[in-house]
Amino acid sequence: MLIKILGAAAGGGFPQWNCNAATSRAAWSNAAGVKPCTQSSLAISADGDRWILLNASPDIRQQIAATQALHPRAKGTLRNSPIQAVVLTNADVDHVAGLLSLRERHPLTLYGSSRVLDVLAANSIFNVLHPDHVTRRPLVLGEPNAIAHHGRDLGITVEPFGVPGKIALYLEDAAAGPGLGTREGDTIGLKVTATATGHAFYYLPACAAVDAGLRQRLRGSSLVFFDGTLFTDDELVKQGLSDKTGARMGHISMAGPDGAMAAFADLDVARRIFIHINTSNPAWIEGSPERREIEAAGWEIACDGMEVRL
Amino acid sequence: MLIKILGAAAGGGFPQWNCNAATSRAAWSNAAGVKPCTQSSLAISADGDRWILLNASPDIRQQIAATQALHPRAKGTLRNSPIQAVVLTNADVDHVAGLLSLRERHPLTLYGSSRVLDVLAANSIFNVLHPDHVTRRPLVLGEPNAIAHHGRDLGITVEPFGVPGKIALYLEDAAAGPGLGTREGDTIGLKVTATATGHAFYYLPACAAVDAGLRQRLRGSSLVFFDGTLFTDDELVKQGLSDKTGARMGHISMAGPDGAMAAFADLDVARRIFIHINTSNPAWIEGSPERREIEAAGWEIACDGMEVRL
Repeated sequence: MLIKILGAAAGGGFPQWNCNAATSRAAWSNAAGVKPCTQSSLAISADGDRWILLNASPDIRQQIAATQALHPRAKGTLRNSPIQAVVLTNADVDHVAGLLSLRERHPLTLYGSSRVLDVLAANSIFNVLHPDHVTRRPLVLGEPNAIAHHGRDLGITVEPFGVPGKIALYLEDAAAGPGLGTREGDTIGLKVTATATGHAFYYLPACAAVDAGLRQRLRGSSLVFFDGTLFTDDELVKQGLSDKTGARMGHISMAGPDGAMAAFADLDVARRIFIHINTSNPAWIEGSPERREIEAAGWEIACDGMEVRL
Repeated sequence: MLIKILGAAAGGGFPQWNCNAATSRAAWSNAAGVKPCTQSSLAISADGDRWILLNASPDIRQQIAATQALHPRAKGTLRNSPIQAVVLTNADVDHVAGLLSLRERHPLTLYGSSRVLDVLAANSIFNVLHPDHVTRRPLVLGEPNAIAHHGRDLGITVEPFGVPGKIALYLEDAAAGPGLGTREGDTIGLKVTATATGHAFYYLPACAAVDAGLRQRLRGSSLVFFDGTLFTDDELVKQGLSDKTGARMGHISMAGPDGAMAAFADLDVARRIFIHINTSNPAWIEGSPERREIEAAGWEIACDGMEVRL
């Protein structure tokens, strides 16, 4: 299985368009050891020929341009793309807005939880993905879903499972209530398995906490892409960028006793890669104390163009 | 007045993600004399400091990154952007999807026809532009509208006027009827005037025909950015890309007796620049017969990064 990191950054990308705090400023000024990144998305393929996107970020056009494996095939038909399917993990803008760029009457199969597909159905702008061309399939939670397109199996299954999380920000008002209106399917993690080899990895770009169920699930796995939004829970507050903590936004922090690095310390996960990294996170800066702490704990920081073969 | 072309291409950009026809293929293969371009948008400023976007394309993040004048000011506050306002000419995906990237609690003023603002209101995903931060102002058609932000005039007025056009594709089904459901305000052109100098230009990224009223309006003007979607009306049909003519899509062609070059021949417009150019248009190819015909007629082809000072 081939895995390409199309975008490593959280919503807004790195640097975020209106952010002038220290880490973003380093990116705006092209400081050494700082690499701008686009918004969170992976491309995966069992055969190197047909590709599945995990989330469709607003930067998708730029990401396709930068990734030759996703260009139309020169020997293919007048309209063709190696992208056959898209799997969504939530309805956040940074994960669904790219769908609007996958138009032009192109056949695709789109997978998401019923909750996420309902959000798309309620926003008529997503009708640019016309049902004549784009089939929307609800993911069954807790079971392996074979990803297929036009009846052809793509050699990959995804098992979606609910994780502690939060409803998309722009839906909060409409679904106010306990847990910020969050219901099953609002935020999911994926276990992604290559059917032929059985090789598998986990993809959790948003996760509010590593609870007992998640610990059990991830233990001993070979590769996890995990929510690296914030280094510390109060990072945005301390930097003066927002009054929201990571907990309020549905994102665990990397560091600290309740953070991801501590939670994974005894889980025996062979390769741990932080993804969905916010513009405020000092982990972006090579050589920073935070980056060194992350690397010392055996974690990697994703970047655009990174590839993993499993 | 400063005018920066952020994106010169029509919806989908150049090359379009799934297009393998000759012109797109030249771009995918980095052929000489072919420059990829992002989707249609201009940035304008009366003072070089505060900027107004004309349309917000899906490529807006990439466009901001490529345009230093639109970066946050290093000496500004923690969150700042020179972008103060956005003016929309229709509700097409290539003109509004970029709004989703102008989030992060940033104060902006958003102008569009009532018809266009209604479309945004009907799609809850645009609530990421929260009314606490983003003020939506209906444009008054046929009158100069002073563009302002937070009560401060930005030194530029836009006069929107209806042009022969078409409703956004994804709205056609919902508003079927004569003229494809098109009503006043679905597609507008803009006369943009710098208040201090009186210098003005026209911006018409979508226009189905140059009728008598439009001829009268444009006659003798100093600069027009005009719909360059297709070179010939049947271009998509002939290339096998679609069964739609330009007329069906609400776009006049560049060439031919009913095309834009013929219509402008006796209008005495000092500078004529084609913009919103489709991935199928051979005008993209430097030195092509079509490009030479365009240049011989005194027209220019816009490209990303082009600047005009008026």
